[in-house]
Amino acid sequence: MRTASLIEPDIALATQLFDTLQAISFDGVGITRDTYGAGEQRAHDLMADTARKLGLEVTVDAALNLYLTLPGRDRSLPAVMAGSHLDSVPRGGNFDGAAGVVAGLAVIAGWLKAGRRPEADVTVMGIRAEESAWFPVSYIGSKAAFGLLPPTALDAPRLNTERPLADYLRDNGADLDALRAGTPHLHASRIDCFIELHIEQGPVLIEAGDQVGVVTGICGSLRYRDGRVFGQYAHSGATPSSHRKDAVVGMATLVCLLQQDWAAMEAKGHELNLTFGRMFTDHAQADFSKVSGRVDFTIDVRSRFPDTLKVMDAYIQAARRKVEAQTGVQIDLGEPSGSTAAAMDPTLRTWLSDTARARGLRVRDMPSGAGHDSALFANQGVPTAMLFVRNAHGSHNPDEAMDMADFAEGTRLLSGLMAMRAGV
Amino acid sequence: MRTASLIEPDIALATQLFDTLQAISFDGVGITRDTYGAGEQRAHDLMADTARKLGLEVTVDAALNLYLTLPGRDRSLPAVMAGSHLDSVPRGGNFDGAAGVVAGLAVIAGWLKAGRRPEADVTVMGIRAEESAWFPVSYIGSKAAFGLLPPTALDAPRLNTERPLADYLRDNGADLDALRAGTPHLHASRIDCFIELHIEQGPVLIEAGDQVGVVTGICGSLRYRDGRVFGQYAHSGATPSSHRKDAVVGMATLVCLLQQDWAAMEAKGHELNLTFGRMFTDHAQADFSKVSGRVDFTIDVRSRFPDTLKVMDAYIQAARRKVEAQTGVQIDLGEPSGSTAAAMDPTLRTWLSDTARARGLRVRDMPSGAGHDSALFANQGVPTAMLFVRNAHGSHNPDEAMDMADFAEGTRLLSGLMAMRAGV
Repeated sequence: MRTASLIEPDIALATQLFDTLQAISFDGVGITRDTYGAGEQRAHDLMADTARKLGLEVTVDAALNLYLTLPGRDRSLPAVMAGSHLDSVPRGGNFDGAAGVVAGLAVIAGWLKAGRRPEADVTVMGIRAEESAWFPVSYIGSKAAFGLLPPTALDAPRLNTERPLADYLRDNGADLDALRAGTPHLHASRIDCFIELHIEQGPVLIEAGDQVGVVTGICGSLRYRDGRVFGQYAHSGATPSSHRKDAVVGMATLVCLLQQDWAAMEAKGHELNLTFGRMFTDHAQADFSKVSGRVDFTIDVRSRFPDTLKVMDAYIQAARRKVEAQTGVQIDLGEPSGSTAAAMDPTLRTWLSDTARARGLRVRDMPSGAGHDSALFANQGVPTAMLFVRNAHGSHNPDEAMDMADFAEGTRLLSGLMAMRAGV
Repeated sequence: MRTASLIEPDIALATQLFDTLQAISFDGVGITRDTYGAGEQRAHDLMADTARKLGLEVTVDAALNLYLTLPGRDRSLPAVMAGSHLDSVPRGGNFDGAAGVVAGLAVIAGWLKAGRRPEADVTVMGIRAEESAWFPVSYIGSKAAFGLLPPTALDAPRLNTERPLADYLRDNGADLDALRAGTPHLHASRIDCFIELHIEQGPVLIEAGDQVGVVTGICGSLRYRDGRVFGQYAHSGATPSSHRKDAVVGMATLVCLLQQDWAAMEAKGHELNLTFGRMFTDHAQADFSKVSGRVDFTIDVRSRFPDTLKVMDAYIQAARRKVEAQTGVQIDLGEPSGSTAAAMDPTLRTWLSDTARARGLRVRDMPSGAGHDSALFANQGVPTAMLFVRNAHGSHNPDEAMDMADFAEGTRLLSGLMAMRAGV
């Protein structure tokens, strides 16, 4: 380990950025930085302003991803990149995503304070549209950066408004022609590495008493976003059990069966998560005095292992048929979607784990159940690493709680790895 | 059986009234005659106009229940009453409720055509607010007619708007002071009998090939209208099964357990229905990528037997505790509400069954799983009967389908019973 790794990041700047982010993103309940909306834009403006004050180059690509660059002495070298996304889910927390951008800026600000300059360009990326809560497409920003956003994604309807992604891109000044043409802004061969610091979104670190996690791989997903159970509306008092096709009962039976299947798969050593995040009777037609004729639902399956996703998909299909036969409902799962699993770079991982241990930190190697833009970078052939910082109460909710001391330790590791790779 | 029972009702008038009702109540999907709203009012106006053309006395009470009276020769005699309600559930069907009022008018119109007059007053009642889909209170109209509407019911919030019942009553010109004082308009001692013709709301008659049903008793109910499962929102990918408190899983487990309990009770000879009519994750906070922290639901239990409701309530409480222990969620059932079961008058029942059989009709004695204003009349000590007319596709939906030939047979029986009791 080179001493260069010890340059102290500007944690005071980071604290100030988190406070400002909280103030400009609070929606009355939680944090809302809506993808390609006012909330996300405010976060981008804050990071761009901060970078300008630090003297960094500030640019955007066709999809309005943000690049904050400290030029290296040899600009022909592949750039060292760090970063994460700046959007949030509706009523989410302040740290999910933003922490990775704030950490990158804190690292560069620390270097500048210490009068240190890198050999290669160092770029902090503020990625757009990672939270597919808003548009039903994964990794919109990083896909677009590599010229990989499918043109059909531009038609994806936004949560609640149903307006297509293209409208929001246009309103924000994105270059739709370049996106449609698939013109890449990033090229894997021009990137030395990509490093994403992120809060842990589950309870693993906090319960184990570990401060940081080094990600071994990022889960892929199998999603049914538009599942529907069709039954038959009927009078609750006048329709005997034998004559019912109750969509609520069909839905409940499907959930219970698949919970059993999930447990059985885990008992056999599979690693996966299964979630029915949304489930609702029809607001206009359902009533307490009616047997329900329809329930809408979503299914989200995650695993590091593509085969595990396939096995669970087979269970889902079998459960669908079983519930139909057993309860008389019809189940339409809708079109599946999903994302590909990704492995993190072993060299970067080892450096992070070894350095953390050498600094006396409690560190854990662990998979990421959640998807991240890092998966996209890794699958493009960019050596990629992810560093998890301990966080209480999970993420995607207003109660995210990251201790700044843990964030500082993670950011020191980030500083060290970036410095080593960029030749500081 | 007296020959008076054979006076033919005016079925042409009935057909015309159903057609007009359909035209003035169609909402684009089904029939909406909203309680104390424009839809219900249009139906009341139609019946009042029709009665005036027939020369009947038209009055309303403090709650705007409608009374259409053919005066008898001796007005000191207790009145013979027939009728039903004129409101509907949202997107319901054309016959539920209205058929009983239309039948009553068709009977009187038939008598007038035949030049027959009753000894006692004969009143067709258009009852308000029977469908508790709109306001969470059962039998609002008939309770008010007997001075039995609890003053707290005036605060009941309407579906969707949340405005209180009192506002709607006031807007329509009801006498709120009289309602608050509990001043009765009807007195059981002044009513000879109440007879309600209604479509059957389940599939029993249509499947058995029976044309009419004579109701033995009306189910009471136990309702939890504001049930809530509280879990913990968490990231769907990052939260392992062992760390979840998934409100959807809690909800599904509750439904599945209680389905088993229902089946076990039926196997032991209990007669009841159990329905979870509404069940939904929180629209603002739920997401396909979140473990759900909350599901709202309703439970509706119906039985002719109060003890059966008590047994099912004990199962519900036990299931709640079991699900909490098993899945880590918290379940709040909210306040229970419900209505009392009621027995129909044996003399009236026997007359209807015997007369129907004598006319060669296929008739069935059967309980009513649905609640009806007749239960309120019966429990006030009024000799009460209900006559079900065969109907396809159940009720509370746009597909109600009653054959006019079946309606005519039911209305002939109604004519006969009313004529016998009123001394025509």
